[in-house]
Amino acid sequence: MNEVVEKAKAAKFVSGKLATTSTKIKNLALDKIGESLKKQENEIIEANKLDLEAGERKGLSQGLLDRLKLDSKRIKEMIDGLQIVKALPDPIGEVLGEWKRPNGLKIKKVRVPLGVVGIIYEARPNVTIDSAALCIKSGNAVVLRGGSDAINSNKILTKIMREAAYLAGIPDGSIQLIEDTSRMAAEDMMGLREYIDVLIPRGGKSLIQTVVSKSRIPTIETGEGNCHAYVEKSADLKMASEIVFNSKVSRPSVCNAIESLLVDEAIAAKFLPMIFKRLKEAGVEIRGDEAARNIDNSIKAATTEDFETEFLALIIAIKVVKNVEEAVEHINQFSTKHSETIITKDKKAMQYFTDNIDSAAVYVNASTRFTDGGEFGFGAEIGISTQKLHARGPMGLPELTSYKYIVNGNGQIRRN
Amino acid sequence: MNEVVEKAKAAKFVSGKLATTSTKIKNLALDKIGESLKKQENEIIEANKLDLEAGERKGLSQGLLDRLKLDSKRIKEMIDGLQIVKALPDPIGEVLGEWKRPNGLKIKKVRVPLGVVGIIYEARPNVTIDSAALCIKSGNAVVLRGGSDAINSNKILTKIMREAAYLAGIPDGSIQLIEDTSRMAAEDMMGLREYIDVLIPRGGKSLIQTVVSKSRIPTIETGEGNCHAYVEKSADLKMASEIVFNSKVSRPSVCNAIESLLVDEAIAAKFLPMIFKRLKEAGVEIRGDEAARNIDNSIKAATTEDFETEFLALIIAIKVVKNVEEAVEHINQFSTKHSETIITKDKKAMQYFTDNIDSAAVYVNASTRFTDGGEFGFGAEIGISTQKLHARGPMGLPELTSYKYIVNGNGQIRRN
Repeated sequence: MNEVVEKAKAAKFVSGKLATTSTKIKNLALDKIGESLKKQENEIIEANKLDLEAGERKGLSQGLLDRLKLDSKRIKEMIDGLQIVKALPDPIGEVLGEWKRPNGLKIKKVRVPLGVVGIIYEARPNVTIDSAALCIKSGNAVVLRGGSDAINSNKILTKIMREAAYLAGIPDGSIQLIEDTSRMAAEDMMGLREYIDVLIPRGGKSLIQTVVSKSRIPTIETGEGNCHAYVEKSADLKMASEIVFNSKVSRPSVCNAIESLLVDEAIAAKFLPMIFKRLKEAGVEIRGDEAARNIDNSIKAATTEDFETEFLALIIAIKVVKNVEEAVEHINQFSTKHSETIITKDKKAMQYFTDNIDSAAVYVNASTRFTDGGEFGFGAEIGISTQKLHARGPMGLPELTSYKYIVNGNGQIRRN
Repeated sequence: MNEVVEKAKAAKFVSGKLATTSTKIKNLALDKIGESLKKQENEIIEANKLDLEAGERKGLSQGLLDRLKLDSKRIKEMIDGLQIVKALPDPIGEVLGEWKRPNGLKIKKVRVPLGVVGIIYEARPNVTIDSAALCIKSGNAVVLRGGSDAINSNKILTKIMREAAYLAGIPDGSIQLIEDTSRMAAEDMMGLREYIDVLIPRGGKSLIQTVVSKSRIPTIETGEGNCHAYVEKSADLKMASEIVFNSKVSRPSVCNAIESLLVDEAIAAKFLPMIFKRLKEAGVEIRGDEAARNIDNSIKAATTEDFETEFLALIIAIKVVKNVEEAVEHINQFSTKHSETIITKDKKAMQYFTDNIDSAAVYVNASTRFTDGGEFGFGAEIGISTQKLHARGPMGLPELTSYKYIVNGNGQIRRN
């Protein structure tokens, strides 16, 4: 039996036990993992060095090397993250509904874990700790498959978690790391419908698209964000400028940053010069449609491809629209259904926008950057779903669960 | 552009409009569809005759021909079904949660339609009306792809629905029927992730397995039911006999009927002869393990395959177990995670069973036959999910929805 099948099967085998493990034991495990991370900090940094050296030899970009790197500060952040998850309420066992039927049957809908969660991700060792912590707390076994460039870091982190969790009373086998980082092993994993209940890809667009198109296991599509800001003609232009600037510039590499700005034609000549000045000062490359270039002919022309692209960089595409209807039509056509915002004072425009925009998070007069488990008050998140099935938007602990019906009778049989 | 792409694209195109259509118009459409079905009863029966004649020439079984047949009584049942759906509360727009963040952002979680629902089903024309009614009421556009043997019936039923719904104010294009009943057309449909949000197969095991393994669209696995009854040693044996008999015999061809019976060894010698007598009188073929055959050597030997099989017929597999732990282990290994029941008076056994059985519906002292949208009080159902993602167990209107977050601010930007 190959490694992938063996480990997924082992996770499935213990998932029933883990599902009924008490909150106390799960929280103790999070404590013990934190203690071990602290105690073995030097060993972690040593293992991580092997990855960093290999990455340098391989010519990884500075950005990738930075994401890969672990130091005291980052290990401390992991440990703090474990405490945040510990502090969250345990979703398992929550009664979601309870009713009695005319025949006397008592039906109870109770929250249960999904079972086994598979995570496929890139070379970011913090995802290893973070994902496993959320899975443990929600009673799910986890099969981790991280990027090859982080394999030494992932091995030691998983070893530490496994040992600490086991000491706390978590069933052995609940945390699995696939050490074979070949593409074939990942594809094997995507076929194991029998053992893995849901697969969550965490990473860039190409990773997500590969998993979504190849997986035989139900998948949650996360994180791709072609987000929009739309400045409606009644907007407070100073507020609009703040929100657009924040949504684009505060952290351009993340999924909740905007990629396109739409502006009503009635205010374009006034607003665009204002915002272009700020964006240019911040080093943002501006690509506009014809109407925008008529206002500022120093900007590049935007192509259809620009409107389809999640730049994840200091680039923005500009479109001048007639009204809220045209803005909504453009957004619903081009967005990845992540986050969009309207800046307006007009109640009707607000209503039309929030009713008709088909995205996970629809904002009125606020930055799109708030789409995030922490900012929404969920405490932590395992990703931001851009699909509609199961969960949408930031996914916290409840989104890592399912439910079952428990039906109590006293001999009822069905007559029809 | 082929028919499948064209129709799925058309459904997606109008889905936004349908999502914001009022309850009043949706209910009016259900009324008008019912009136038209009544008015065009003769035309429906004529079209259905073409299907029946073709089916006879093709040599379809009596069972299949019976499922295919439409007469006045069955058309009346369809119309009654529309009224049941009309009477259900509209799930769309329901506020699922509302809270304010320390920074003043007001977050509202609102129920919205999934968008476009694809249904792939067999030659049962009632599913055409029934699925479309549930989709309309939940604000979803629907792409129907029924079995080839019912094509004439499906064409006229869909035409009636489309016309009546349009007259009521439902956007044109909300109800689509794929008339190409080739396997290739179905496979084309399973690839249209861009236009169809969820695919629900309704039918037998092989249909479901094909869809689940080939679809690129998120799928909900429904209806396969290898269900179990377990008679624990403290059980009221008269009650156990009633429940087992009802669960097996009342309608053996449906998914919530049991296929296997487990009995504690302490009561096997007393209970098995009791239940075997009743089952034999009802014409049930009994296949038992060694312990069961030691009690009654007239029964056949059960193979592992028998325990894995959803017979959907008057056949039952029998296993004698040591205790509730062994019963749960067997069930979790062999069941399709649909419905299981324990008959017992022992509180500890009940608790162990309901905690550890990993199925959509877990019964105590009641027949498994109650797993059904109507019996659960949902009014209607589009299927019974046996997967854990999105929905589990009977799926009513709320299970045909997603949600979005609407976030209201007054200029908030993110500082970190």
